[in-house]
Amino acid sequence: MSDELIIQSHKGSYAVNFNESLLDDVTELFENTPHFLIDANVARLYKIELASVINHPKVIVIEATEENKSIERVIPVIARLVANKARRGDTLVAIGGGIIQDITCFIASTLLRGMAWRFVPTTLLAQADSCIGSKSSINLGATKNILGTFNPPEKIHLCSKFLDTLDQKDIYSGVGEILKVHAIAGKETFDLLAATYDQLFTDRAVLRRYIGSALRIKQKYIELDEFDRGIRNIFNYGHSFGHAIESATNFGVPHGIAVAMGMDMANAIASGRGLTSIETYQRMHGVLKKNYASYASANIQTDALMTALMKDKKNTATQLVLILPIGNDAEIQRVEVVADEQFGDQCEVFLKALNK
Amino acid sequence: MSDELIIQSHKGSYAVNFNESLLDDVTELFENTPHFLIDANVARLYKIELASVINHPKVIVIEATEENKSIERVIPVIARLVANKARRGDTLVAIGGGIIQDITCFIASTLLRGMAWRFVPTTLLAQADSCIGSKSSINLGATKNILGTFNPPEKIHLCSKFLDTLDQKDIYSGVGEILKVHAIAGKETFDLLAATYDQLFTDRAVLRRYIGSALRIKQKYIELDEFDRGIRNIFNYGHSFGHAIESATNFGVPHGIAVAMGMDMANAIASGRGLTSIETYQRMHGVLKKNYASYASANIQTDALMTALMKDKKNTATQLVLILPIGNDAEIQRVEVVADEQFGDQCEVFLKALNK
Repeated sequence: MSDELIIQSHKGSYAVNFNESLLDDVTELFENTPHFLIDANVARLYKIELASVINHPKVIVIEATEENKSIERVIPVIARLVANKARRGDTLVAIGGGIIQDITCFIASTLLRGMAWRFVPTTLLAQADSCIGSKSSINLGATKNILGTFNPPEKIHLCSKFLDTLDQKDIYSGVGEILKVHAIAGKETFDLLAATYDQLFTDRAVLRRYIGSALRIKQKYIELDEFDRGIRNIFNYGHSFGHAIESATNFGVPHGIAVAMGMDMANAIASGRGLTSIETYQRMHGVLKKNYASYASANIQTDALMTALMKDKKNTATQLVLILPIGNDAEIQRVEVVADEQFGDQCEVFLKALNK
Repeated sequence: MSDELIIQSHKGSYAVNFNESLLDDVTELFENTPHFLIDANVARLYKIELASVINHPKVIVIEATEENKSIERVIPVIARLVANKARRGDTLVAIGGGIIQDITCFIASTLLRGMAWRFVPTTLLAQADSCIGSKSSINLGATKNILGTFNPPEKIHLCSKFLDTLDQKDIYSGVGEILKVHAIAGKETFDLLAATYDQLFTDRAVLRRYIGSALRIKQKYIELDEFDRGIRNIFNYGHSFGHAIESATNFGVPHGIAVAMGMDMANAIASGRGLTSIETYQRMHGVLKKNYASYASANIQTDALMTALMKDKKNTATQLVLILPIGNDAEIQRVEVVADEQFGDQCEVFLKALNK
């Protein structure tokens, strides 16, 4: 099976190529003078299938840690590429998850005034969400994601067989973002997914179908608003709370799981403030809770969460910009909410009820 | 006087605003929440005229050294902008020459996935050449200009009064690039400039006219080939040799003066190899030599120059990509030249004759 999804971007169109036999034959990754940037863990797990990549003279193996996503750690990677004589016409090939994607995309934006790059996403988060949309995010010291660019890859080679070696928590994390994207697509789309939820973990064909579905939903928005100046904002649904949860737990909760928890929290607050019906919260709660259940006892302190929330670039001390379900149809929208006492109380109630 | 030149770019059009009263009234620099990045020397020289900039809470003063143009030194500048709470809608305002331009343009490309930036060029090199064309270049360790982006400013505020405080050598350096641009425009354009050459140094109105003329000539090429994939290459005329001269003298020769010397060398080699007539070399030699005369005794070693030339990204051990005057009309073209013994001899003859 090999079919394609074609995405339009400011740099022309690029394809997501669904290729389930990629691990049997990786020759297509060697087009156009490649320099490989590969996740150390992927290199260990697929040392046989990816032997020709790993033994290539121009391969750079990177541990996919948050620290390595900083500009300070990216510099030696660039120095390696320069030492390996990277030229303007060469191609950077990222093999890994979001961190390897961010590093490669950022380097491709800035080395030699721009190089082509391709991507083999190996995590569910990267396959179902981050691989399309052009964004890179790089840390500077302790400031997360402050640097970045919009720079789509030339091509994405998507093979779901990489998911075989993922931890369960990383599958849940990816499913968290899949849930988010389908919530954006509307009530019916979300409910259909919710009804199929358990099969995502047991039936690869179902999971593959939802990877494709998530990408097609996201495609519509990134093609309309690639530079994230308007409608694309709603993809931050669950993220203001999600990032605050990650921060308050010192990144103890995987990203997509924190997003699922964040969506549940956003729904609780929206319905608590009368912005959506209580039914919206209840309708979605079951599946969201299932997705973050193993982290429900993470013991998130309200104070730590509120502090993290206030650090969000979009928020001020009195005004919060949130993405919430609005109205009976639970349409996902960007709204401004007053950071009043009631808001703090609502957050506390949600957090206290978490592991009940 | 305030007129404008409108440049088309991949990010829309931007204006070069010629404003000779900028130093009397700088309010226009404060539009759109500015963060200033200003050359320390300019801040010292114009502490009265630019007092409101220098005393602004969001000003960063930078010594315009080659070292400060490295990614390692750019990081703390970004950290300062983050500490000063730079937001996506704010504007970076560069005040200085090419180094401040490079630093600001690069940061504007990568901070918060892109910010607007404006430019007040204060050197002749920046006013007559680098201010338009979108390029930024940043060093990585000892590797010069390996990082960079294409990112045009939102606006250029050009005031020739800044030239009052330039060293003579920096005027000569800027004139070197003006000579190059006019050579590209053709024999007659170059000869007209050559006939007016002395007035560039004595009559500000004439110099201003040629700044405008240089920008209009360059405009045509950068609009056709902003990303430097084809015709824009010819703006490297004098630069392969010029960069090698800078490198062989440990940057003892100012950039535009090395370019003038490099053009003379390119002409000598092109005529020596029969690619253009001896008259081309002779016709241009007088004014080029005048422009680099005070560095003619720089004592450039042939070996050092050849080594530097071979390091040029475009060249291999056997093949050189050069920009040379071709034919009787001395049309500036990109050509490949075999790096044979004759070539080495020609370089040596040129260098030996330099200070005769």
